[in-house]
Amino acid sequence: MDGEGNSNHIGGMNDLENEGFLDGKEIERYWSEISEKSMIMYKEPLLTKRRNTTSQIAIVGANVCSIESLDYEIVENELFKQDWRSRKKAQIFQYVVLKWALALLIGLGTGLVGFFNNIAVENIAGFKLLLTSDFMSKKKYFKAFAAYAGCNIGLAAAAAALCAFIAPAAAGSGIPEVKAYLNGIDAHSILAPSTLFVKIFGSILGVSAGFVVGKEGPMVHTGACIASLLGQGGSRKYHLTWSWLKYFKNDQDRRDLITCGAAAGVAAAFRAPVGGVLFALEEAASWWRSALLWRTFFTTAVVAIVLRTFIEYCWTGKCGLFGQGGLIMYDVSAATETYSGPDILAVLFLGVVGGIFGSLYNYLVDKVLRTYSIINEKGARFKILLVVTICILTTCCSFGLPWFSKCIPCPTDPAVTCSTESGNFKRFQCQSGYYNDLASLFLNTNDDAIRNLFSTSTRDEFRISSLFIFFAAIYCLGIITYGIAVPSGLFIPVILAGACYGRLVGRLFASISKLDTGLFALLGAASFLGGTMRMTVSLCVILLELTNDLLLLPLIMLVLLVSKTVADCFNKGVYDQIVKLKGLPYMEAHAEPYMKHLAARDVVSGPLVTFSGIEKVGNIMHALRTTGHNGFPVIDEPPFTDASELCGIVLRSHLLVLLKGKSFSRNQVHCGGEILRKYAALDFAKAGSGKGMKLEDLNIEEEEMEMYVDLHPITNASPYTVVETMSLAKAAILFRQLGLRHMCVVPKSQGRPPIVGILTRHDFMPEHILGLYPHLSPHK
Amino acid sequence: MDGEGNSNHIGGMNDLENEGFLDGKEIERYWSEISEKSMIMYKEPLLTKRRNTTSQIAIVGANVCSIESLDYEIVENELFKQDWRSRKKAQIFQYVVLKWALALLIGLGTGLVGFFNNIAVENIAGFKLLLTSDFMSKKKYFKAFAAYAGCNIGLAAAAAALCAFIAPAAAGSGIPEVKAYLNGIDAHSILAPSTLFVKIFGSILGVSAGFVVGKEGPMVHTGACIASLLGQGGSRKYHLTWSWLKYFKNDQDRRDLITCGAAAGVAAAFRAPVGGVLFALEEAASWWRSALLWRTFFTTAVVAIVLRTFIEYCWTGKCGLFGQGGLIMYDVSAATETYSGPDILAVLFLGVVGGIFGSLYNYLVDKVLRTYSIINEKGARFKILLVVTICILTTCCSFGLPWFSKCIPCPTDPAVTCSTESGNFKRFQCQSGYYNDLASLFLNTNDDAIRNLFSTSTRDEFRISSLFIFFAAIYCLGIITYGIAVPSGLFIPVILAGACYGRLVGRLFASISKLDTGLFALLGAASFLGGTMRMTVSLCVILLELTNDLLLLPLIMLVLLVSKTVADCFNKGVYDQIVKLKGLPYMEAHAEPYMKHLAARDVVSGPLVTFSGIEKVGNIMHALRTTGHNGFPVIDEPPFTDASELCGIVLRSHLLVLLKGKSFSRNQVHCGGEILRKYAALDFAKAGSGKGMKLEDLNIEEEEMEMYVDLHPITNASPYTVVETMSLAKAAILFRQLGLRHMCVVPKSQGRPPIVGILTRHDFMPEHILGLYPHLSPHK
Repeated sequence: MDGEGNSNHIGGMNDLENEGFLDGKEIERYWSEISEKSMIMYKEPLLTKRRNTTSQIAIVGANVCSIESLDYEIVENELFKQDWRSRKKAQIFQYVVLKWALALLIGLGTGLVGFFNNIAVENIAGFKLLLTSDFMSKKKYFKAFAAYAGCNIGLAAAAAALCAFIAPAAAGSGIPEVKAYLNGIDAHSILAPSTLFVKIFGSILGVSAGFVVGKEGPMVHTGACIASLLGQGGSRKYHLTWSWLKYFKNDQDRRDLITCGAAAGVAAAFRAPVGGVLFALEEAASWWRSALLWRTFFTTAVVAIVLRTFIEYCWTGKCGLFGQGGLIMYDVSAATETYSGPDILAVLFLGVVGGIFGSLYNYLVDKVLRTYSIINEKGARFKILLVVTICILTTCCSFGLPWFSKCIPCPTDPAVTCSTESGNFKRFQCQSGYYNDLASLFLNTNDDAIRNLFSTSTRDEFRISSLFIFFAAIYCLGIITYGIAVPSGLFIPVILAGACYGRLVGRLFASISKLDTGLFALLGAASFLGGTMRMTVSLCVILLELTNDLLLLPLIMLVLLVSKTVADCFNKGVYDQIVKLKGLPYMEAHAEPYMKHLAARDVVSGPLVTFSGIEKVGNIMHALRTTGHNGFPVIDEPPFTDASELCGIVLRSHLLVLLKGKSFSRNQVHCGGEILRKYAALDFAKAGSGKGMKLEDLNIEEEEMEMYVDLHPITNASPYTVVETMSLAKAAILFRQLGLRHMCVVPKSQGRPPIVGILTRHDFMPEHILGLYPHLSPHK
Repeated sequence: MDGEGNSNHIGGMNDLENEGFLDGKEIERYWSEISEKSMIMYKEPLLTKRRNTTSQIAIVGANVCSIESLDYEIVENELFKQDWRSRKKAQIFQYVVLKWALALLIGLGTGLVGFFNNIAVENIAGFKLLLTSDFMSKKKYFKAFAAYAGCNIGLAAAAAALCAFIAPAAAGSGIPEVKAYLNGIDAHSILAPSTLFVKIFGSILGVSAGFVVGKEGPMVHTGACIASLLGQGGSRKYHLTWSWLKYFKNDQDRRDLITCGAAAGVAAAFRAPVGGVLFALEEAASWWRSALLWRTFFTTAVVAIVLRTFIEYCWTGKCGLFGQGGLIMYDVSAATETYSGPDILAVLFLGVVGGIFGSLYNYLVDKVLRTYSIINEKGARFKILLVVTICILTTCCSFGLPWFSKCIPCPTDPAVTCSTESGNFKRFQCQSGYYNDLASLFLNTNDDAIRNLFSTSTRDEFRISSLFIFFAAIYCLGIITYGIAVPSGLFIPVILAGACYGRLVGRLFASISKLDTGLFALLGAASFLGGTMRMTVSLCVILLELTNDLLLLPLIMLVLLVSKTVADCFNKGVYDQIVKLKGLPYMEAHAEPYMKHLAARDVVSGPLVTFSGIEKVGNIMHALRTTGHNGFPVIDEPPFTDASELCGIVLRSHLLVLLKGKSFSRNQVHCGGEILRKYAALDFAKAGSGKGMKLEDLNIEEEEMEMYVDLHPITNASPYTVVETMSLAKAAILFRQLGLRHMCVVPKSQGRPPIVGILTRHDFMPEHILGLYPHLSPHK
């Protein structure tokens, strides 16, 4: 529970209900789960006139979790300052070396996982497809379908079971969760080791099962999980508590690592190191500094080198069915690159329509997700059932639709492997020397289907009708697949649908535009990506690194700009939308217009619980027990000072450690020196997510309740402050830019208490503000 | 003069002297110039114990200018709020459209200038080189030298004259100045129209004169100047005051435009649109938000399209001697890209040594710049003399050194134009069918020389001895050329030296590494760039876009990381170094370690001049006259309020407008409503650099001095504040991240005045802090 924003779970529930997530039954279940906590919390009546009614729970993956804020602010208390001062050059050197070593390990780990993912998928799916086409070539059509469907359902059920029983947080793309984490929202399960495990294997099984999902989004989440695991500062459980690691026991360093991890994920997924850095910068991170750019770049360089080494190793045929593609996944550089006026018009048309399709995609994904979350709430069995249903649907589409396509004679080019069992041109029901174009798209891995669509100088490889059927099927399947309890990326479905759409447009415009249909497919993919994800530079670079055609850059930029602009007229980017839908309290980079009309004091909620510099243990215990606040202002009162003055802010986690150590005194006297000697900074280091000390771990005797404890050594004397009249818009931007958890509101006039309230993340949420001031219009 | 940081010019001079810029005579001259101002300023004795002794002047280009801070903070006073509330949807739409229209214009303008630059250089230099080789082929060696030297000296003298007499601020690269501007430092001449003019033509003349300078740095400055010109909000002088433009009369919007301009500059210079965006992000900008990423990207896309259109037009031979190269300037994609262990070792060696050479380059450039600034200070004639001297030296090198090289028979490949007058292989003194390799490097434009060095599959095109001579000459000439009074970029000299170094290493390692020497040249250029500029992602992408070899990406990343790491052990990046050398008060992104030991109150300098909410005109005039402060806290006192309270902060420029309008009242009463009716927000809009109202423009009668004026409507009620105990390190980061000009320091205890001081940029400068606390070690 977080700062002031903890007050009312019931309100939170109503919020969810309004969002359309849950119906009556769920609410009852939630209520029974949460009421216990609430009982503790609301023993005392709330004293303030204003309460924060925003939710403290959110959906992570396919599960509802309680959420916290992260402490990205650098705490400057006496204890930590003493620690800094005492750090020797050698220790600073250790820290720097370790930072780079961790970046190296993240790169290595993510690169290895990315490569393993690829090999596993190509081998499992390859085996399945070989089996099917083997039966097909023997005209045993029913057996072929049974084998294909059986493999698919088995793989899908396995993926769903992993996800439902072990780590529901691993469902979905994971990019919204990583984005939320980097924005300062913590839920234990986002980056837990079990999530990592399920993300890797669930993704392999899911992609192999023939779902229209990608392994790219999950790779980003995987990279972040690996980074988080490395950034835990060792593990006491497994006796991995190397003293060097202690420097990383804080949220700022973990944030840096996880940013590197997200970049490494993209780099591994698309073999696009520069694209990875830009993705982390443009989409994932809420907070950036130039040193991070460099470290991220290093991490993705390591990923690129790892991938390159292994791919080179596999060229010798040692990796089973894996083998296609080097660092460039879909090389289109062979196509000629001149273009003229009509081409640009065709491309503009492509961008506009792509933008509309993209925003429609977002709209439909949103609707489907809301429906699915109702099903997913019903329990693990329903999750699995949903997955299997979608799997059967997908299987029927991909095996059934190719029957509608007629056989096409193989191209005469001897370089093309056609109508064999392993080539990209699938024979399906056709006789030797002919291929089925729809089967070449449907009965292939997603990567190979994209490669087919991007292939240049092959204008008539696919019939217009086949392209149309494939486009419609993939567009719809992509929408209904996202949200099931399987790790599922959004990139590949969007690229597939977009590439098919682009190729279709290319064929339709063949009379006026001389651009290659493969290039049209690439531009179509760009337009869909721009329309759904709304990234610009990072998508552009990722596409470049995927396709190795630098000369197409101006056209790709144009398409991305057009489709993003068009799509922005309708709704938000898909990740932003999912973040909002999941109820994650994401701080936007810009302030809402109505915030300009409010001041900081207008949204502060209470009651404000403050401590004296030397406070009675009983008071602290009472406050910790009766509130969920995470930060408490410390105020020195006369006679210790001339007037009451703001000393700083003390964190709940630090208080717990101090109380556990029982450095109490019988009288109200300074005993900071003793505390500084007794404790090391490491004692107060922030443990990994979900591992911190709890109030129940304390064991305070009755008589100790009457004793005093000196809070000065652990009080952060440099809290960020705003004057109460500061406009809320500016306060919100400040809060977000600095990645704060608590922001002190100080009075503007003499003679009042030195602090009038604390703002936290939840106080900036539109639901809270518009709840307090319903007359404000959210759009002006 | 800025905020509190205005106090002592003499101190500033001493600072400059310590930096080694000036000697006794200059100081006397400065002193006479500045003492007049100082007289006005110090009529009253300073009341505070602490004064800020950092300088208010800095070197811009080759000239000393007075500097100011920019107002990047959004002012939220009643007048502006009223304006926002009254803005209709149509006006918001106007604003958005205009923002994009300006981005489009910046892209168009910069693209056109970039193209014009290229054509002009290739034609002028091409004519010169044709003339020379014409004489050479007729064995008229002396005439050839005379023609070559005459052209060079004439062009150089013209460039120097333009620079010395019209716009000294146009000398040098301009990137440090743009960087400083985007950091919040304003000097009128940085982005003045005259600077733009000289930057364009001076750069053309300078590059054509055969100097070892690039046109890339100046293009960045040019882009920024174009953006600034467009962002002036029209011009009253030329009756271009379209009402739409008024929305851009503020520093925030100008900053956005100039960021776009800098990106467009790189995009135009290297034909690298993505690299341009990343350059702006990584090197130029101090402040970034994600919307800006998109706009910058749009601008550079426009540049790319403009360039592509014109280059295509020129392929038909309509642009004189211009014609080489499409969007990819130096295509190396023909080379094979496999590499193995020994190659990587060679590349690591290349990176380490390149890093050392790069940091040595920075060190020497710094020394040379200090020397040159002494010469440049002596006046315009000395500037021109220096330029001509360097020109003669360069000419002698480039005409003289090729004589040491022996003739080489032309390669048999018929595709290579060799030993003709226009080809890249120059005949020089050789007979037909032979070429002189050194002349092919020296007697070419810099672009063609780089193209020669990057050329693949031509291992023996240049002799090792020739490469060594060229490397030594270019490395030294590059160092002594930067700093003369000519627009001169650093990219090209570094790329030239680096490419030559790389090719040399490639030749030396030929026995163990199979990488193409052209690729070695590329990696060598990368290592030098990494070693001097210390950028990572942007350099990587720029190099990719220059050379179109995506498969080399892992190696380029490796080289950049190694060379940057090595060079960072010795000194700072060349632009950072030049910024510091020029005395620009640049705010770093990180705080210095010693700042952790200080609190905000420890560096506040005074005296603090405050106003009442309704203040006597005479008091305001006195304060404006006797201080140079730019922001004044406004405090409401009893009987208007219960206790004295902080109302906000009022800017000097707004005060001047208010006083000019003479909305005075005889008694101390609120008359805010009247002011709100009388003034429009536009009246207070910030005019372009150097155009604002001055104190001398006011004409206040004696009797009006006794009247009162209500400051509330123009008081920014949302100033950023820190508590006095806030650690200076955190305050500095806050100041930089938010791009502030004034930061209010508030007391931590009850009963004291509601504000205890104001921090400005100069208060965070190491010179000031270490001056106050000399016992602090700057390195721990």
